[in-house]
Amino acid sequence: MAETNPDLDVVCIGNAIVDVLAQTDDATIERLGMAKGAMSLIDADQAEALYREMAPGVETSGGSAGNTAAGLASFGSRVAYIGKIADDQLGGIFRHDIRAIGAEFDTPAASDGPPTARCLIFITPDAERTMNTFLGACVNLGPDDIDGALLARAKVTYLEGYLWDRDEAKAAFLKAARLAHEANRRVALTLSDAFCVDRHRDSFRELINGHVDVLFANEAEILSLYQTDSFDEALQHVRDDCAIAALTRSEKGAVIVDGDEVHVVDAEPVAKVVDTTGAGDQYAAGFLHGLTHGHGPYDCGRLGGIAAAEVIGHIGPRPLVSLKELAAKRAG
Amino acid sequence: MAETNPDLDVVCIGNAIVDVLAQTDDATIERLGMAKGAMSLIDADQAEALYREMAPGVETSGGSAGNTAAGLASFGSRVAYIGKIADDQLGGIFRHDIRAIGAEFDTPAASDGPPTARCLIFITPDAERTMNTFLGACVNLGPDDIDGALLARAKVTYLEGYLWDRDEAKAAFLKAARLAHEANRRVALTLSDAFCVDRHRDSFRELINGHVDVLFANEAEILSLYQTDSFDEALQHVRDDCAIAALTRSEKGAVIVDGDEVHVVDAEPVAKVVDTTGAGDQYAAGFLHGLTHGHGPYDCGRLGGIAAAEVIGHIGPRPLVSLKELAAKRAG
Repeated sequence: MAETNPDLDVVCIGNAIVDVLAQTDDATIERLGMAKGAMSLIDADQAEALYREMAPGVETSGGSAGNTAAGLASFGSRVAYIGKIADDQLGGIFRHDIRAIGAEFDTPAASDGPPTARCLIFITPDAERTMNTFLGACVNLGPDDIDGALLARAKVTYLEGYLWDRDEAKAAFLKAARLAHEANRRVALTLSDAFCVDRHRDSFRELINGHVDVLFANEAEILSLYQTDSFDEALQHVRDDCAIAALTRSEKGAVIVDGDEVHVVDAEPVAKVVDTTGAGDQYAAGFLHGLTHGHGPYDCGRLGGIAAAEVIGHIGPRPLVSLKELAAKRAG
Repeated sequence: MAETNPDLDVVCIGNAIVDVLAQTDDATIERLGMAKGAMSLIDADQAEALYREMAPGVETSGGSAGNTAAGLASFGSRVAYIGKIADDQLGGIFRHDIRAIGAEFDTPAASDGPPTARCLIFITPDAERTMNTFLGACVNLGPDDIDGALLARAKVTYLEGYLWDRDEAKAAFLKAARLAHEANRRVALTLSDAFCVDRHRDSFRELINGHVDVLFANEAEILSLYQTDSFDEALQHVRDDCAIAALTRSEKGAVIVDGDEVHVVDAEPVAKVVDTTGAGDQYAAGFLHGLTHGHGPYDCGRLGGIAAAEVIGHIGPRPLVSLKELAAKRAG
């Protein structure tokens, strides 16, 4: 394939989801049998039943890679998004919001089949979020939705691990990785969730070893991936598997592995943690913005930390301020 | 009609609307030709065109009387709501949210015709909100939706002035006032918006004089109603027209007229005004909670002020904390 200068920084591929956020308490999480802090997949009936148990909600566009696209755009990166909505009101909200941040988004909406995906997010007083995703129209994302010409225009193709839950999306995922590499672009992946890693440990390890240049994982995810209790052991493993890994440890900051280099980046200060929804997504946004703009690994980690600190200070998974201005202020 | 003890405090009747809130700047308000701070009615095409100009939004149930119902429930009042949604995703959100706060809501959804109403709300850095309402399914609210048995169960029937924009809703409004009075209940009204008063000045004055026991108005609205520049003159007028009037003056507090008594209530302190959406609605909620729980006019005004101060401290038109607990803390 003839190589051209990329006019995009990152193409994000993921489940296109509208979040429904509501406050709750620990007793309700327990009564409803939810795995606190995790993302669980639910069907349409479960979604309806669970929604009935929810307090009044706030609806806002979400989806892990969609949130990362919003963060990247807020930093000033040029982004595109691939994900499947239905041709309904929630789909219209998702499309509006992702385009309004400046992202290219042209995946055709499904005109029949299940409605646009939603994620019922229960926020407990400790700011932890417990997520229940009804995938809806996302089940229709397949290899045909992967546009090779679009991937060739972007420096990085970024994929969320949640896609790995379904075979069609997995095929789309592998096609995207192949096409990005054929165009001499980089492939980045977030492991998304420790339970997601549990479900797909072996195939994730194969994938990372063969197709991933930049890996994002939090501590629980990387320990689960390598089935170890030792963060250091996991760190040594991941060095063999991919070129760059950003391993986040919440308030302990992050460790960035870049070939032979290892950088420890402290967490950014946060006045009050309100809602951790989107923390990992915004970390990836900051890191990838740095990576696609010539920053070294330590600075990429700092940008990730700044973006994550912003998003956990308020309700909702996407930044409420310009991350570009925020980062400039922190550097100044 | 045989009188029974009311088992509800307030029935709120209004336009059932989902709000779409986004931040903007004054230049955009001007470029789009919007009347800053006002509520304008728009059609489906205008709604689509304006939505394209909006930043990414947050969706949340709104509607003036719906917000008041949510505030009342947050104080611990027993409430019901009457308003028209369509049988679509946004309607499902509205229904869920109003029921989740504990309100009775059984108005049948429209199964055809326009979709559920939405209000595109542009919030400027000065925290002022500029509203553009596509009434959608609300145009189908009519006298048949007014349930006399429900009104007879509530101490107060509360109506939003915005209903006065359409003849069918006006008929519903008058039917509700008549049935409430036949059951020896009180009728309350908010004038809603100075432009709304401009559109309907004469009929509003007739309505208030003949059918309204408790009137809510802000300074601009009451001045417009009596076509005067003098707040004091308007105050003297309103004493002749209805038993109780709560006249709000933003940071200058409120003046409560109750027959021969006049009470001046200072505004509650607010750390930072973020978004004034819902301020008047929550004021009415606090006042009506007091009124239906045996409080005197000054205390009713204070409860109104406490609720309004809470809602302008964050994005969105409904309280984020328990107003019952907040009021107890302020009193203690």
